[in-house]
Amino acid sequence: MNWNHYVSLAREGDLVQLLGRGHKSHFIHLKAGAIFQTHRGELNHDSMIGKPWGTRLLSHTGHPFFLMRPGLADLLTAIKRNTQIIYPKDIGYILMVMGIGPGMTVLEAGTGSGALTSAFAFFVGDQGKVISYDNREQIQNLARKNLTRLGLFDRVTLKLGDARDGFDERNMDAIFLDLPNPNIVIPQVKASLKVGGFFGTIVPTTNQVCDLLPELHRNDFAFVEVCEIMLRFYKPDWERLRPTDRMVAHTGFLIFARSVMEKPESD
Amino acid sequence: MNWNHYVSLAREGDLVQLLGRGHKSHFIHLKAGAIFQTHRGELNHDSMIGKPWGTRLLSHTGHPFFLMRPGLADLLTAIKRNTQIIYPKDIGYILMVMGIGPGMTVLEAGTGSGALTSAFAFFVGDQGKVISYDNREQIQNLARKNLTRLGLFDRVTLKLGDARDGFDERNMDAIFLDLPNPNIVIPQVKASLKVGGFFGTIVPTTNQVCDLLPELHRNDFAFVEVCEIMLRFYKPDWERLRPTDRMVAHTGFLIFARSVMEKPESD
Amino acid sequence: MNWNHYVSLAREGDLVQLLGRGHKSHFIHLKAGAIFQTHRGELNHDSMIGKPWGTRLLSHTGHPFFLMRPGLADLLTAIKRNTQIIYPKDIGYILMVMGIGPGMTVLEAGTGSGALTSAFAFFVGDQGKVISYDNREQIQNLARKNLTRLGLFDRVTLKLGDARDGFDERNMDAIFLDLPNPNIVIPQVKASLKVGGFFGTIVPTTNQVCDLLPELHRNDFAFVEVCEIMLRFYKPDWERLRPTDRMVAHTGFLIFARSVMEKPESD
Amino acid sequence: MNWNHYVSLAREGDLVQLLGRGHKSHFIHLKAGAIFQTHRGELNHDSMIGKPWGTRLLSHTGHPFFLMRPGLADLLTAIKRNTQIIYPKDIGYILMVMGIGPGMTVLEAGTGSGALTSAFAFFVGDQGKVISYDNREQIQNLARKNLTRLGLFDRVTLKLGDARDGFDERNMDAIFLDLPNPNIVIPQVKASLKVGGFFGTIVPTTNQVCDLLPELHRNDFAFVEVCEIMLRFYKPDWERLRPTDRMVAHTGFLIFARSVMEKPESD
Repeated sequence: MNWNHYVSLAREGDLVQLLGRGHKSHFIHLKAGAIFQTHRGELNHDSMIGKPWGTRLLSHTGHPFFLMRPGLADLLTAIKRNTQIIYPKDIGYILMVMGIGPGMTVLEAGTGSGALTSAFAFFVGDQGKVISYDNREQIQNLARKNLTRLGLFDRVTLKLGDARDGFDERNMDAIFLDLPNPNIVIPQVKASLKVGGFFGTIVPTTNQVCDLLPELHRNDFAFVEVCEIMLRFYKPDWERLRPTDRMVAHTGFLIFARSVMEKPESD
Repeated sequence: MNWNHYVSLAREGDLVQLLGRGHKSHFIHLKAGAIFQTHRGELNHDSMIGKPWGTRLLSHTGHPFFLMRPGLADLLTAIKRNTQIIYPKDIGYILMVMGIGPGMTVLEAGTGSGALTSAFAFFVGDQGKVISYDNREQIQNLARKNLTRLGLFDRVTLKLGDARDGFDERNMDAIFLDLPNPNIVIPQVKASLKVGGFFGTIVPTTNQVCDLLPELHRNDFAFVEVCEIMLRFYKPDWERLRPTDRMVAHTGFLIFARSVMEKPESD
Repeated sequence: MNWNHYVSLAREGDLVQLLGRGHKSHFIHLKAGAIFQTHRGELNHDSMIGKPWGTRLLSHTGHPFFLMRPGLADLLTAIKRNTQIIYPKDIGYILMVMGIGPGMTVLEAGTGSGALTSAFAFFVGDQGKVISYDNREQIQNLARKNLTRLGLFDRVTLKLGDARDGFDERNMDAIFLDLPNPNIVIPQVKASLKVGGFFGTIVPTTNQVCDLLPELHRNDFAFVEVCEIMLRFYKPDWERLRPTDRMVAHTGFLIFARSVMEKPESD
Repeated sequence: MNWNHYVSLAREGDLVQLLGRGHKSHFIHLKAGAIFQTHRGELNHDSMIGKPWGTRLLSHTGHPFFLMRPGLADLLTAIKRNTQIIYPKDIGYILMVMGIGPGMTVLEAGTGSGALTSAFAFFVGDQGKVISYDNREQIQNLARKNLTRLGLFDRVTLKLGDARDGFDERNMDAIFLDLPNPNIVIPQVKASLKVGGFFGTIVPTTNQVCDLLPELHRNDFAFVEVCEIMLRFYKPDWERLRPTDRMVAHTGFLIFARSVMEKPESD
């Protein structure tokens, strides 16, 4: 899959999103002769290849599916995983605060299922680079599969290694930790991050926030920001507009900081 | 300013962020011989040129400032404006849902002060393009200045024009409306958007949401999502961790939809 | 059940709360010789009568239950219902804003399953009065049963009638509407409410809010307040304190106003 | 002031709420011959005595004021204070969870400015009782003044004393702590609370929550609930309905628990 070169018709090899009723998504690679099977019936890949995006198709049992270029947020949410993944609402804010865009080099630990790695790889573009550490080989293999499937693996270097042993890289623009104990590897982050560079992490509990903050202070990080992002959906009914009944109440606390040369007096 | 080629030392011409106490930011372009003046004292640009990022400097009255590469979110928040700007929390989610990344072509109406335009330009990279319409010449001039100052203007085409007259472009990947009445230009959006493409907008009131939704339905948009993003900050004090006392309660309702070929029966 | 005269031991006739694992509550009236049956085993009522509150009992299959005086919020949440009930978070705020306490007379339409009626009856005490209208006989019968079960029926007058036909009462301290279309009965509310009195209602959609507000304005209500209450629970784990993963995102919009003698110029 | 016996006309001695433009409230006791002075002009008390509630009056400079019976929530928010007060949104939920209504006896520590004490006194009615401890004499004097002004002092016993020394009372229905370190007095609470009784507290930081929870566990409290209440206001404009721009983001974490006889295995 080449993110920049989708054309107006679905082609063999494309990763496509089939959107059914109730917003249920399926992601498949188009392959001549193959059959897409779901409990709402079958669709031949051949009936999709060459069709314009947005086409409405019917399964052999008459259920409608729309043929769509994959949406990034949907794609990341649907990624194969055996770990907790980071939500699009959190990723979006991480990108903005850390300025992770085209041409950037980003270091991440740990890789997990590769959802955040994929998002970083998407946004740094083909001139950027994501280096991602994890000490669990099996999990990193899953991430490799996910990245390859999304056509983003060539922008990523996966390294099998424990963040506690430090990172090979120096002068990184940005380092993001997705680890249970980010507090124990802050000197390692400091050593690999450009002075002035961006640090970020996400942790689920307030205790982890409290453990991390003094380590940031001790290692000359400043301009610390602790926050959380809440996403509230509305039922899109113009005669009865209202928030949905239930929502995801918590994914994690985001913590950002910047590496500086000298401890500020008061921060 | 070249976003991809910051080096480890601040150079003449660089846009720098001076971060003072209380997280107050100043953004300046470094120029040999110039003087940065603030109510917390003066700093010579020459004392910054050639210094590593993250350096702590003192004004002539002894107030500390950190010399930083500009943070994207800070930068957009500080942009010169005479219109309401879109917040980083909202921009981040827009990027994720609409998949606005390297190499994309995005159409926007209206330009406003150019904060969202800048964010889009940053994330599409130098291989992408942002086309932005506004029918207010003076406002677009301000946007041009802001984009130029951020070194992003070469990725943007500003067009003076009213969205009601339609757009010159066809087959856009993504169209975002930042207009008071997005509901009145949905056929124009439909005509310029790729089938399968991403539509997004932000409106402050529930009435505008209720006005827009039937228009999206009427013009064969599907997979409509209405949501809002809330950002809650915490005081970064590890012995007294707590949310800040007050927060921004509302910026706008985000509405996303995808153009499809035929109206779905139930959506 | 006499809310004011619980003694330290559970007595025959008392309404008791049996709290099992995972905070699951059961409410029963103690009756000599009776047996409480649950899928976690049986408990003889006799084993509870005469026991101090807070006693830990075991069912015949060894599952633990605590014998508790009923908690008001739990009780209202567990009420038998065939309609949507109002949540404790909303009721609490209604009490505060409308000042519904001992000795007050409150008028309500409609009764529904009687959860809010019960809360009002609890808080007005035995010197207060709740008058509640509903035009659905079957539903009001359920409310009667619920109120009787909670020992609060003697503080309540249920009236079978449609709010559109107006209310018999005049000079009410406070009127609360729990109706699908509160906007169509505002003149009736005005006629029965003391000037200076408190009006309140709850509606699920923004459209209903928009329908109601001009009616309040037209009928000389002022000091209008529109709000919503969000309740976020945390997992009570002191080593891993964090919000619960999911929450109730929306119950309704609360609208309050006060009847005044003359329309204010700007409100 | 007698909360239950307001009549339809304002009388000498009544505590009245004068509501001006922009919802600004003033609370005064009516006294023949007295003059109410504000920067929006003067009003003679005599022009209010004998007037119906809801009457619109003009100050001598022509500014409008409505003569209102005081609203409880407004009243508590406006109380004279030198300490942080508890907000109506939090008080309402406390009442509901702890079942604090007519005829109840409630113990509180510390009194502070008396806002919560007043709310408890209002809701327990003239057959109930509130006992409130504080070890700061001056602060309790302020509370006494506030309670007297609200006509609620006869329902309250103020005791000068430190919660660490324990409470004179036994078998309380409900105990609420409004102290900086509730965790250090849980055995004292246990000794004075009925088994089965309700414990509640509010603390601003997550650290305090983490300090308190193990103490509750150690002292045989169960059915622990940790939560926070968020209140979001909307601008009451039916053509432009939207949340207000800013909101109170945090007042405190509410913690509730019930005293039981024996530690549950898993809670």
